[in-house]
Amino acid sequence: MDTFYVVPEQIHNNLVKSAYRHRGFSETEAAYGAKFSAYATTHGIRTHNALKAIHLDDLFGSKVGGCVPNATIEERPSRFPSAKVWNANLKLGQATAYEAIETCIKLADTYGVGTVSVDNAFHYLWGGGYVLEAATRGYIAYTNCTAALAEVVPFKGKFPTLGTNPHSWGFPTQDAVGFPIVIDWATSVVAMGRVQQLLREGQPLPENAAVDANGKPTTDPSKAVALIPFGAHKGYGLSLINEIVGGFIGGSLPTIRNRAKVSGEKHSCCFYFQVIHPEALGSGLFAKGRSQIQNVKAVIEDVLGHGNESCMLPGQPEAAFAQRTRKNGGLLFTEKEIEAFNEYATECGQQKWDAHSFKVAL
Amino acid sequence: MDTFYVVPEQIHNNLVKSAYRHRGFSETEAAYGAKFSAYATTHGIRTHNALKAIHLDDLFGSKVGGCVPNATIEERPSRFPSAKVWNANLKLGQATAYEAIETCIKLADTYGVGTVSVDNAFHYLWGGGYVLEAATRGYIAYTNCTAALAEVVPFKGKFPTLGTNPHSWGFPTQDAVGFPIVIDWATSVVAMGRVQQLLREGQPLPENAAVDANGKPTTDPSKAVALIPFGAHKGYGLSLINEIVGGFIGGSLPTIRNRAKVSGEKHSCCFYFQVIHPEALGSGLFAKGRSQIQNVKAVIEDVLGHGNESCMLPGQPEAAFAQRTRKNGGLLFTEKEIEAFNEYATECGQQKWDAHSFKVAL
Repeated sequence: MDTFYVVPEQIHNNLVKSAYRHRGFSETEAAYGAKFSAYATTHGIRTHNALKAIHLDDLFGSKVGGCVPNATIEERPSRFPSAKVWNANLKLGQATAYEAIETCIKLADTYGVGTVSVDNAFHYLWGGGYVLEAATRGYIAYTNCTAALAEVVPFKGKFPTLGTNPHSWGFPTQDAVGFPIVIDWATSVVAMGRVQQLLREGQPLPENAAVDANGKPTTDPSKAVALIPFGAHKGYGLSLINEIVGGFIGGSLPTIRNRAKVSGEKHSCCFYFQVIHPEALGSGLFAKGRSQIQNVKAVIEDVLGHGNESCMLPGQPEAAFAQRTRKNGGLLFTEKEIEAFNEYATECGQQKWDAHSFKVAL
Repeated sequence: MDTFYVVPEQIHNNLVKSAYRHRGFSETEAAYGAKFSAYATTHGIRTHNALKAIHLDDLFGSKVGGCVPNATIEERPSRFPSAKVWNANLKLGQATAYEAIETCIKLADTYGVGTVSVDNAFHYLWGGGYVLEAATRGYIAYTNCTAALAEVVPFKGKFPTLGTNPHSWGFPTQDAVGFPIVIDWATSVVAMGRVQQLLREGQPLPENAAVDANGKPTTDPSKAVALIPFGAHKGYGLSLINEIVGGFIGGSLPTIRNRAKVSGEKHSCCFYFQVIHPEALGSGLFAKGRSQIQNVKAVIEDVLGHGNESCMLPGQPEAAFAQRTRKNGGLLFTEKEIEAFNEYATECGQQKWDAHSFKVAL
């Protein structure tokens, strides 16, 4: 088990905001960036915390023109009242995504369902976070996006042309099971970060998780050059949906997205968001006089009954981590993570953190 | 390779309509039933053709009160213009689903996106067919439904509480790749029918496809009592979505749906349909002056380029089978299938088919 130190959220948010401000982002953008990183860390999403966010900005973002501080979102003309289309003009992904979810919620309040499609977007980090936010506020939400990097081969393919990007669904089940159910996972068997970790540790990959340069499945992490979709053609189909939706929105070729600059092509991501008002689904004809949420509770209890009581629900580990975070009264980081934050503190002239000055987390 | 005989669609439709009329369904319902069966057969969907449709009606439908001939769909009150909610009153699933897709298309034309949620529904057979229909007409469509029978265990579970029901997505890609891309597969590794087939053939199951009575994974088809979701927790999450959406609509406990009659509980299925107008997604900011569909074509060509040229697209086998059907000028059935049709012909006093009076299919 990792030892975590309790970093007060305010201290974390101040540093993250400084890092974004140092890169030229506006006060509002920096605040969105900090808020979302705190949200991810609260829920134990260590792969998509502030360190990843700022690293992404370094690699693909404001330093190389992939993300543009102070960009203004432009609403594109549309004759469809329930569906908005935005040109994000490469604005910070978290700022764009928070505003898109907010707009979808307003559309869902009026029309029952609302969508926001975003072209010229920059990485929004953790799709699960936005649908979790909407679900916490009582809505059914969904998002997908196109990948910054193509790392996944099509089913039976040899060259990576698809992303690991998830589809993320959030359901307002907190009054049924105590937390929103969030379904959110990569379309590959494992992430590329996991391949690198197993390479460092001298461990084999799972079967059918990666291919070598000839497109042959390999369990040798040193030979793995691309990932295989989970569930064979099934994960491939899901992975493809992101690119097809992105193609309809305005995204360009997946293989060049954040790689080679190709004249006349676009290198940005697309986002798709959708929110449904739960009352827009309900027939009102629930058995045994149940309310809608009591009915959902009865269904889930049936799914996890009959000997399945020890099964988990998607979103449950994140909810448990959030409870641990709340109990500790701050965000939980390891010593190594705190060291990594200190590089950014130095860069933007902020005070470094001393892990041992923070409480050890329960 | 199976030998197929070419049954003129009119002959097929007349028999299927007679079978439905014989069971008390209206002329319109019987026509929908015949049309959808012909559509499934055209696309090579042999697991969900007319034989399955009528078998389902026998098992769970009009003979036992699960499906009610001549039922009227009631629109439930809703304050949300883009989202309709219907009480299908156990109307024939194909008739309900065709009307729901039609309504979604009208909503999408007006609002950009439209949904129809259906409570008290009866099995619609092949979700892929409805989204394919909408995609063929130029729309992006999606459907899911709850299962007639719970056959799948939750991830790490032992008792089947979830269906194998797919999520079905259809995309109007015919002008990009020659056919609509349709993503539509069961949430289990294999279908229960496949378990039974392997049992008959004395063959083992794939790894992690089924559990025995103690919830232990087994490759012995004689010990398999329930199915495992594909992709471990990932397929489980997808499977769960059907039940959660159904729970919000008005569906009751999955384990009793078509099994034990429980007083005060509901035993019907739920459907969810969604159609998006592709123009409601598009930013108009396509690279290199491409139109929206040219952009989608460029994206798909990139996915299937770079050495991936032999990979298939979801929907491609169905499109190829439809081409073969058209070339033969009729629906393709095996001799065994024709024999099975003859049981229904006898039942409703229609002329039997003689396989050898039909052309052998190319």
